[in-house]
Parts: sequence; C-alpha cells; structure tokens
Amino acid sequence: MALSRLAAGSVGRVETRYLDLPDPVPLDCGAELHPVRVAYETYGTLSPARDNVVLVCHALSGDAHAAGHAVTPPPESTRDGFAAEDRDDRSSKDLGWWDGMIGPGKAFDTDHFFVVSTNLLGGCRGTTGPSSTDPATGRPYGSDFPVITVADMVRTERAFLDVLGIERLAAVAGGSLGGMQALEWAVLYPDQVDAVVAIASTHALAPQGMAWNAIARESILRDPGWQGGHYYGTGQTADAGMGVARMVGHVTYLSGPALADKFDRRLQTGSEIRFTITEPEFEVESYLRHQADSFVKRFDANTYLYTSRALTYFDLARQHGAGSLTRALADVAARTLLIAFSSDWLYPPSASEEIHDALLALDKPVELHVIDAPYGHDCFLLEESRQTPVIQRFLDHAGVRS
Amino acid sequence: MALSRLAAGSVGRVETRYLDLPDPVPLDCGAELHPVRVAYETYGTLSPARDNVVLVCHALSGDAHAAGHAVTPPPESTRDGFAAEDRDDRSSKDLGWWDGMIGPGKAFDTDHFFVVSTNLLGGCRGTTGPSSTDPATGRPYGSDFPVITVADMVRTERAFLDVLGIERLAAVAGGSLGGMQALEWAVLYPDQVDAVVAIASTHALAPQGMAWNAIARESILRDPGWQGGHYYGTGQTADAGMGVARMVGHVTYLSGPALADKFDRRLQTGSEIRFTITEPEFEVESYLRHQADSFVKRFDANTYLYTSRALTYFDLARQHGAGSLTRALADVAARTLLIAFSSDWLYPPSASEEIHDALLALDKPVELHVIDAPYGHDCFLLEESRQTPVIQRFLDHAGVRS
Repeated sequence: MALSRLAAGSVGRVETRYLDLPDPVPLDCGAELHPVRVAYETYGTLSPARDNVVLVCHALSGDAHAAGHAVTPPPESTRDGFAAEDRDDRSSKDLGWWDGMIGPGKAFDTDHFFVVSTNLLGGCRGTTGPSSTDPATGRPYGSDFPVITVADMVRTERAFLDVLGIERLAAVAGGSLGGMQALEWAVLYPDQVDAVVAIASTHALAPQGMAWNAIARESILRDPGWQGGHYYGTGQTADAGMGVARMVGHVTYLSGPALADKFDRRLQTGSEIRFTITEPEFEVESYLRHQADSFVKRFDANTYLYTSRALTYFDLARQHGAGSLTRALADVAARTLLIAFSSDWLYPPSASEEIHDALLALDKPVELHVIDAPYGHDCFLLEESRQTPVIQRFLDHAGVRS
Repeated sequence: MALSRLAAGSVGRVETRYLDLPDPVPLDCGAELHPVRVAYETYGTLSPARDNVVLVCHALSGDAHAAGHAVTPPPESTRDGFAAEDRDDRSSKDLGWWDGMIGPGKAFDTDHFFVVSTNLLGGCRGTTGPSSTDPATGRPYGSDFPVITVADMVRTERAFLDVLGIERLAAVAGGSLGGMQALEWAVLYPDQVDAVVAIASTHALAPQGMAWNAIARESILRDPGWQGGHYYGTGQTADAGMGVARMVGHVTYLSGPALADKFDRRLQTGSEIRFTITEPEFEVESYLRHQADSFVKRFDANTYLYTSRALTYFDLARQHGAGSLTRALADVAARTLLIAFSSDWLYPPSASEEIHDALLALDKPVELHVIDAPYGHDCFLLEESRQTPVIQRFLDHAGVRS
C-alpha cells in the first residue's frame, strides 16, 4: 500500500462504486427513469445510529470522486478552473475535486462524519445519463434522455441513500450547482436534513448567468458533430462546440482581476506579436484553448447540455413558492450555512443574501459568511483554509456532530 | 424629398460613398495593401480653411453609416445591443449607429463641424477587407488577408483624408474600438489632431476582455463552415460560430443588472417550463438567439476575426512606449476627453483613469468623465443625453470649433 506516502488528512485511495436503484425515479417532466445506476464514493465510517452522514453534491463538471486518490485515475483532473490548474503537480492528478475539504481534520471531517458523494443524475461519470443505454432502444439515450431538474437529481440521491439504509442527513453540502442540490434537499425533504451548507450558490441563477449557460449550450447545439444529440458511436462528437462552452464557463468562474493577475497581457513568445488569426498569441488565449482541449477528453456534451439546463431551470421561488422565495423556504427545518465570495460574479453574494434574508424572515437558523477573496466563483474550490473553520464551527453545533 | 419628415437634428438622408486610395497602405505586419477602397459618409460642411473636420471611428460591428437615414437601408440595423433593440420602430431601421450624437445641435454638431465617418480597414461594409478581391488571385482574400492592427486602420484613415485634402482634424472621436483608433491617431499623428474624444475605450484590453474575444474567434474558427477562411462562394459560411461569437459579445456589452432589469427570469410562455434542451425557454435565451441570427445576416465572419484580433493586439504601451503608457503618450499634442461608464465591465472606467493619469503626469490637457449609468459598455451608444453636454462643452473650447 502506498498510503504512507499520502499527505496527512487524506482519505487515502478510493474506488468509485456503482449501485443500481431498485425502483424507477419519478421526474419533474412526468416521465420515470429506469434503470438508474448511481456512481458513488464514501469516506469515513457510518455510525451505528446512522446519524453522521454528510452528502456532498458536485457542480457542473464534477463527479463522485470528491476526495482522496482515485484507484483508477481519470484521464484528466475533474476539478474546475484554477483548482485543476494551480495544483498541477503530477501526484495530484488523481485527487478528488474537493479533497481539500474532505478528510480527517478537514472541513468535512471524516473522523466524525460518513461522507457520501455521488455523480449526479444525467452525469457522464458512472451515474445514468444521456450516454447510458436507453432500455427502449438498446442504444444510448442521446437527446431522448428526459430533461431533468435539480429536484430530479435530489430525488435520485434520496433513492440512492434509501438503498444504503440512510434515512437522515446530518448535513448536505455543495458549491455552485452542488449548493442548489443542497438547498433543494432542505425544501424537498425538510424532516430528513439537519444542516445545509450551500457555498457560492443561489436560489435561482441571475439572467447574466442564464445567458452564459445559454451560450454554452448553443455552442454545442450548433456543432454539426452534435447530430441532434445522437453522436454516440458515430466517430464524431461535439467536442469543438463543447470546447467553446468550456471556455465560456471558465471565464465566468474566474474574476477579471484574477485573470489579470495570472496572465496580464503576456505574449506566448517574447515581446513581438506574430500577426496570427488562428493561433493563440497571448498566454490567456493559450490557457483557454488548453482548458477546452483537456475538458472535452473527459466530458460528454449531452451531459453538459442537460446539466446546464437543469441549473438554469433551478428556481426555488418558482418551483415551491409560487414566485415567493420566503414561501418556498417556509418548511425548511435544517440549519443553513451560506458561504459566498466577494469576487464571485456568477453566483454573487447578493444571491446568498436573498436566501439568508428569506430564512431570517422565517425565523430559521441561518448564517451567511461572505469571504473576501479574489478568485471569483472558483473560490469554492480554492479557498479551503478560509472555509474550513467556518464549516467546522457550524457542523460542531449540537445535534449534528456524531 | 422626404427631408421635412425627418426628426429635428437629423443630417437627413445619406448615401455611403466609396473612394480608392491612390497608394498602397503600409501595414504593421510588414506587408503593403493595394488596392484599398474606403467606404465613407460625411455630414455638415467643410469650412474653407478645412479646419472643422471631426473624424468618427466605429466599433467592432459598425460601418460608415454613422448618422442620418441611409438611402439604401442595410438589411439589418448596424447598431449594437440595446441600441438596436430598444429603438426598434420601423422608421429607425436605417438610422446611423451614432445618429443620436451626430447632427445639427447634437454632440458632434454638423452646423459647425464637417463630420467624416469611414468603414474601418478589414471591414465588410465597403472598405477593403477579407471579403474583398485579392488582386494576386482574383478571388476573395479570405484568411490570406494580412493581419491588421488598429494603427493600420488609422493609417488607412489618414491616407483617405489626404485624398479629401484634409490635413488636420479638429477632433477624432469614437467609442470602444473607435476610441482606440482615436487614441492611436493622437499618438501616430500628434501634430495633426487637435482633440481626441475616446469613449468607453482603453489603452489596452484587459485579460478578461482578451478572453472573451479569444472565445468569439475560437467559435468562428471551430465552425466547419469557416473552411480555413476560404468560405466565400462555397455556399457555406461560419454563421453558426459567428452567432455564438455575437452572443458572447452581446452579454459583455451589457451589465448584469441591465440584463436582469430587461429580462428577469421570465419564461417565453406562461409560468411552466417546457422541459426543452434545444429551444429557448427564457426570454433572455430567445433574445440572444435573435441577436445572433440578425447579426450573421449582415456581417462577415472573417471581418469579425480580423477586427477582434486587432482590438486585442491594441496596446499603446507595448506599441509606442516599450511597456510604459506614459512614454507612449509623451508626444500627444491633442486635448483629450475621456468618457467612461460606471457599469462598463468590458472597458471599465479604470482603463480610462489610467490614460487620464498618464496624460496628467505629462501635463497634457485631459478630462475624464465617468458617467454613472446602468447599461454597461453599450452606454456609449445609449447615453446620448448625458454625453452630449460633456462633448459639446469640450469641443466648444477655443481653437476647435470652427
């Protein structure tokens, strides 16, 4: 075993496992999905009372491998943005996307909690999604996969935990789309969630964020390789369009000052421009192309489309409150921790403030921490040292810690 | 004549004219371009002393038709963003892109000034560009068109004015890329420019803006219809990719709050989502698709590529100051008016402040006005009533007004 060489606080080597749900999953669109397989990992030990479970939910491009070293490393790191870029030592290539937050002594402390992480419904990393086989045809669903919502993802997670014999969650946590899932849990299953940790998230994406997501999807839809969503097995993909989608995403995950700090206007070669239209000339251009190229190697274009659509649809007030966020949150019983980052313009602090104010108006226990940090939305993957004490203090509260 | 029906302050009906430059234009890349045709319009009357000329320079998607009603209206309005959208009465379809600023009694007052507007070098609206015939082959240049810079655009404008017998400019003015040209004029021809009006512009695009431009270009380059830049006459174009490029541009021209104010999260139809991946569901999604569709009807993908590249290269400090903006501006003799908008995150006020501070350090006459307005970069096309008195006061200064 190579465990002795792992950094202190690591959950060690982890293998992703798979579980088939026994029953169809009912979806918001009216359809039912069956069969549904869920890819998952667990870290720590389930307490005899099964009351120490923390469910961790991932963002658009994540997967079940949230912590530790993968037994079979994925072809590329699954972590977003600077996170993947800045810790680019070879040994970390197989690290989970939230390894800095999950492990012994970390924010989600595996000495106390049994942390469960699943690949979300619609995913392309082991959980049933558009690239899975449609039992009706024997071929991949493609665009015949039903249009899913964040609530459908949460229902799938609920069904999955049922199989594991887990009734209650000590906490459900996530950043970005993961935070949306955490909030949806608190609304859908108010008597089964003790605490919510929603980081760099929102109750509903703002129109500018909706626009970026629409552009990313358009870029995929307009790629002839997408072929109406049925590209599997054709030898052609929508990689070109998804690469552009990824570039758009990337820039929205970072702040302008962070990009300036990292790249400035540095040219790739020397101080003279080369007068090129087709080649990257500046470092920031080369970086974006690299991010696109490595992303398309590990991600499925249809999963991108479906997940982007789900997070755009997500709107607690519309779904559960007839337009009122306060009404939507009326039955929430969980304590809620909200963390936002000052430079996050995609999921800005104001969105977390709106959730905070609505919960406060309802006399629900809620904390909001706005962390002053420069890296934009990606902070939720980067600012581990500043999130950790906040989360630890919050989870230390009576009734949550096992 | 239908002039009596035109609004007060209009320059009336205007026809774009064309002029062939007698000599080759030397380019920064080392090549020479010949022949070069320039599309242009003029408004007002040239004074006998030829000292009342204002050159107006357009932005990425503009053209020579800056003011008045076009004799032959273009297929779509050439104005950007909200400007084109919000004044969508039929009678304004043929209005110039800066009609609110150019005319009798307007910011650039044609009762006093002889306003000249050209389509920029590399354009697709009459001036020589990638869609023009390459004399070496008899076919359109396509991607064999030389890679041009903002300085090359300005050299072309200089050569064009030479033919008109105009030596000095009372002022050179523009927004965005147009402002870059105005600043380049002041540096390249310091003894021929009396005043510069650079609006919502910069001395060098910031890395985030460089990233958006790189993404827009990637989207075109990755469209199979682009065909290495030689798509003319093939019946195929890069419209799909350029549509995505336009959507990206559009969102960067507007502020997040402006998008929220205009669209909120309103659905296209009623209050229920339709569970669609491929169709626009929200108003903001439909708006973006419409903007893309109407843009590709009137614009050439190669011109987009070349112009986006030129504005990304633009960097006064690198070009003229060995990295120092102050050194680059050392010989400027023009008075400079800088206008920026509080909500413009693509060409933020800080960029104008840097120009202001450099000119001030050099004891050059300079004014900076940051207008508090919510519409983002597009403000330079929209906030006419608040720019007008600032510009009028500036141009009223002794020595400029004829």
